[in-house]
Amino acid sequence: MLDCDRITIVLVSPRNPLNIGAAARAMANFGFSHLTVVAPYEPHWREAKSAVGAADLLQNARRTPCLAEAVADCTLVLGTGTVDRRQPEQPVVTLPSLAPLVDKELARGGRVALVFGPEKRGLTREDLARCHMLVEIPTDSGQPSMNLGQAVAVCLYELAARRADARAPDSPAEASKTREPQGLASETPESGPPATSGSLDLLAAVIEDTMAAADYSPAAMRRANRHDLLLLLRRLTLTERDARRLLGLFRRILHRLPH
Amino acid sequence: MLDCDRITIVLVSPRNPLNIGAAARAMANFGFSHLTVVAPYEPHWREAKSAVGAADLLQNARRTPCLAEAVADCTLVLGTGTVDRRQPEQPVVTLPSLAPLVDKELARGGRVALVFGPEKRGLTREDLARCHMLVEIPTDSGQPSMNLGQAVAVCLYELAARRADARAPDSPAEASKTREPQGLASETPESGPPATSGSLDLLAAVIEDTMAAADYSPAAMRRANRHDLLLLLRRLTLTERDARRLLGLFRRILHRLPH
Repeated sequence: MLDCDRITIVLVSPRNPLNIGAAARAMANFGFSHLTVVAPYEPHWREAKSAVGAADLLQNARRTPCLAEAVADCTLVLGTGTVDRRQPEQPVVTLPSLAPLVDKELARGGRVALVFGPEKRGLTREDLARCHMLVEIPTDSGQPSMNLGQAVAVCLYELAARRADARAPDSPAEASKTREPQGLASETPESGPPATSGSLDLLAAVIEDTMAAADYSPAAMRRANRHDLLLLLRRLTLTERDARRLLGLFRRILHRLPH
Repeated sequence: MLDCDRITIVLVSPRNPLNIGAAARAMANFGFSHLTVVAPYEPHWREAKSAVGAADLLQNARRTPCLAEAVADCTLVLGTGTVDRRQPEQPVVTLPSLAPLVDKELARGGRVALVFGPEKRGLTREDLARCHMLVEIPTDSGQPSMNLGQAVAVCLYELAARRADARAPDSPAEASKTREPQGLASETPESGPPATSGSLDLLAAVIEDTMAAADYSPAAMRRANRHDLLLLLRRLTLTERDARRLLGLFRRILHRLPH
């Protein structure tokens, strides 16, 4: 069956309580149970939680002040939306091609986050810097923007239906693999378990400090450099071990630099 | 591109204006424009039509008193829902396998209807007798029932995404085929264009009259016989020519029977 246990659905600052409820219902419909809500608008979040149906899922939802914290333990962070407003800064995958990527990430022991932005404006540039990839739902150019609850339903349907398809031929082998992610990782020692989003953020912070201590760039450039650094680290597909090594290296450099 | 022009979305007695709006928005998102609403609750229908967004589609929606009339010109009528309440009386296809069937029907010059029942109770037995097939959305057994707007979104996403996929390899040939359905039908003279739902209803009515005139069954059985007859005619996949021939035959028989 599906291993939805290592997939988290993240709603960033949802406004409409009906949309929150609809997202939760779609999760229940397709067998997903981990919901994280980032910086919700308090009255609407309370209203959504007290609505009938899908109550358990909303009661158990995690709540974080920012996206970085919501996805800290994830190794593949997927931003959703219509990629028409600006040139995307990371790879774009269309929804019908998503399931094999997610399967691969779960097979190597990773955790996946599927991130949905607020209704009106979508994910901010800062939020997008936490995403390894963008998922594009192929909509009509005349009306590209989807309702939040419907976008969640379509994405989860795709993952549930295609992953079930993909697994059908050799499900017993697949099942044993997902029960032992460590064992799988040791089969491919050159890769190892992927770095979590939290490890990448920690590494980025130390590199930033190093850049500042080395007077790498004027203060005015630091924000832009930080953004590029977050994106770069996600492009590299580092393992957790890579991230730890680089962290050690930059900490050493930082320590040796004159303050 | 997609030939959504011969696919009609039918909402049977939708109650919630938000759901009507959401269904229309999903249609616009995925490039569908033909909406028919069957026996809507008048105040809610007015409210949905006056809401912002997707207005054109709702303004141009067709409105019929019953499902039979809504699908009279269609050759493949697909009922949607969770097939768990009762033993279905017609073939069931799961949503991920639907696109090739729809493609085939459009290629032979047919028209397709995708029918959604009311929010609470789904399609009635009488409505289901107008369906050639049932489409099952593969949902979790813990929460099988989907919100109407989300169910429409998921079904239309599947059709739009998979049909685009299916067409991608040889789209020019495919495009010329769909421009000339008659030409294609003449390539397979043994089949011909499929019978519309309206032709089948007309045929069923004449057969019913014939059965009554022949004292085939007691009056108490007529309702059940009628239901079985509607289903039977849809199982036979008659061409329009078959239906016309049978109609002629039964009219002749009826004429000869003593009144």
